[in-house]
Amino acid sequence: MRYRDKRVLVTGGLGFIGSNLAIRLVAEGARVTVVDPLILGCGGNRFNLEPVAGDVEVHECSIADASRLRPILARCDTVFNLAGEISHIHSMLFPERDLEINTTSQLLFLQSCLAAAPGVRIVYAGTRQVYGVPAYLPVDENHPVNPVDFNGVHKYAATQYHLMLHRMGLLDAVVIRLTNVYGPRMALDVPCQGFLSTYLRKALTAQALEIFGDGRQLRDPLYVDDAVEAFLAAGAARDLPRHAYNAGGPAPLSLAEIAESLSAVAGLPAPSRRPFPQERKAIDIGSYYTDSTKIGEDLRWRPATSFAEGAARTLAFYRERLPHYLDAGNPNPGCKLVHSRRPNAISELVSS
Amino acid sequence: MRYRDKRVLVTGGLGFIGSNLAIRLVAEGARVTVVDPLILGCGGNRFNLEPVAGDVEVHECSIADASRLRPILARCDTVFNLAGEISHIHSMLFPERDLEINTTSQLLFLQSCLAAAPGVRIVYAGTRQVYGVPAYLPVDENHPVNPVDFNGVHKYAATQYHLMLHRMGLLDAVVIRLTNVYGPRMALDVPCQGFLSTYLRKALTAQALEIFGDGRQLRDPLYVDDAVEAFLAAGAARDLPRHAYNAGGPAPLSLAEIAESLSAVAGLPAPSRRPFPQERKAIDIGSYYTDSTKIGEDLRWRPATSFAEGAARTLAFYRERLPHYLDAGNPNPGCKLVHSRRPNAISELVSS
Repeated sequence: MRYRDKRVLVTGGLGFIGSNLAIRLVAEGARVTVVDPLILGCGGNRFNLEPVAGDVEVHECSIADASRLRPILARCDTVFNLAGEISHIHSMLFPERDLEINTTSQLLFLQSCLAAAPGVRIVYAGTRQVYGVPAYLPVDENHPVNPVDFNGVHKYAATQYHLMLHRMGLLDAVVIRLTNVYGPRMALDVPCQGFLSTYLRKALTAQALEIFGDGRQLRDPLYVDDAVEAFLAAGAARDLPRHAYNAGGPAPLSLAEIAESLSAVAGLPAPSRRPFPQERKAIDIGSYYTDSTKIGEDLRWRPATSFAEGAARTLAFYRERLPHYLDAGNPNPGCKLVHSRRPNAISELVSS
Repeated sequence: MRYRDKRVLVTGGLGFIGSNLAIRLVAEGARVTVVDPLILGCGGNRFNLEPVAGDVEVHECSIADASRLRPILARCDTVFNLAGEISHIHSMLFPERDLEINTTSQLLFLQSCLAAAPGVRIVYAGTRQVYGVPAYLPVDENHPVNPVDFNGVHKYAATQYHLMLHRMGLLDAVVIRLTNVYGPRMALDVPCQGFLSTYLRKALTAQALEIFGDGRQLRDPLYVDDAVEAFLAAGAARDLPRHAYNAGGPAPLSLAEIAESLSAVAGLPAPSRRPFPQERKAIDIGSYYTDSTKIGEDLRWRPATSFAEGAARTLAFYRERLPHYLDAGNPNPGCKLVHSRRPNAISELVSS
């Protein structure tokens, strides 16, 4: 019981991965505080913490709010830093918003950490998006950084904050660079959160899935319980030889295979095919899958859940709780976001 | 005459390198507009453009000011984007300020470029600081990015903006990653701008130079006229095979050799030695010098000015104009900046 009676903070803890992590930490006996600003489009949902209601202290505020955060951090043993926006398309349409959420807020949050919890262990949720179009596969931690969208640029800046402050001895940081994660508590009512969210939404509403183009691009979807285990392992490990780890799924699958597998599990007809959308081409990265060797060696972590198994568990979760995810407090908040301002040059690019 | 009648914008054009570039562009027959917000501590000085007063249109405003910038950009053939803060120490003391100047403002400026001058050639002044502590020497463009301070993180994010928008075909960007540049029009009254500014200030006020520690760390100082030539070449070249180039000085010299050479040129006694200051250790990068092979191949650029020659020209320039640089409109603005707020965890680190 690595976390028994440990005081942990989960930023973004009303979101997809953060809430799964918070629930698991409660089960491990931790005293869990969650900070989440419920920013429109970022996937936060109060219902996500329903299983641990009363067991978790929840602050609905920005991680940049130093006066709220410092007292929380002052009594904190471990920080899991998952607050952020993950949508690549949102970041291209609203780059300043993405900068504010993923970089500026992180800078202010880390300054609160330095002031109130110097040297604290902090595990940051990075992203494979920083690598951009893979120069080789599978992608390891030495792959060049070459983001293809603002989200990648801004998440990388925040990654560098963590690693730099670690090297200076001011924080004890570990970055987990995640591949596409899926599972219970993923936002289904926020468009532009990636193909897995779209596929799940369609499967749960009995719509046939669509494959864009030939569907041969590879991905390595990671089930959220496995991602949570990577965070738990990183938060508890001591004297790590590295401080940034890639974490990917158990096996590369083509997008077509993913769609077919999910359709089969959901009892849907085979996916249909349509041309690759023009607006996605500019930020498409082709095939990606992860070399998770180093996190396996150093943290003894490996992804345990096959896609078919994870998909079945995910569908079972949502079938009992669908109104909370398809008709939540914010109906289609992402759409509202995308339609909330006139197009500029970048939005013209991605929507043309 | 590559720039005859060309309409060029120089951001940061009241600063050190920007003003030298603007003066040279006027000599080449360009129609030069300068935008510079004269931010406290960034080295801007109205006197820098004294030789071309009346020949340059100067806007004292932020590059983030879209309503001012868009009309300028709409009639612009080439953009030289040199606005920014270069002080590593300022960035550690005031990280949000550095983020605002080096990243947020650049994001807003580039959006103005996309809207008013889509596809424009833009040459961005990057920095060797993004590489951090060299893993090998000399440092080429493939060296891993590992900044040791906020300035490096934020300049790298802006670099990625340029390169990403270039790959998308929205801008025609070239990044020149500069080593330590010195020469006429460098701010001498702003502390924390690096050792060359400090050495010049001392040499010009007849104070003996100091060598910190053993002074064996290597640098490759680049004379500003050579840096300007790199920008001119990058602005005029077409169909470049690469879009980020390192540009360094003609030869690596130790800090002791640099101090000794400058002392000899200035007619000063030999430099004195003192222990390496504790507050610099956290952001010290050891030895650095540049592999300028690629810019030599693709732009036929090479640094022409030896340090002894550049130092002599620099001292001659300042001796005739010293009041404008040591007692300018902003006496010690950098100091004012550094003392303008209470210490936080980071400032405690770098000043302890």
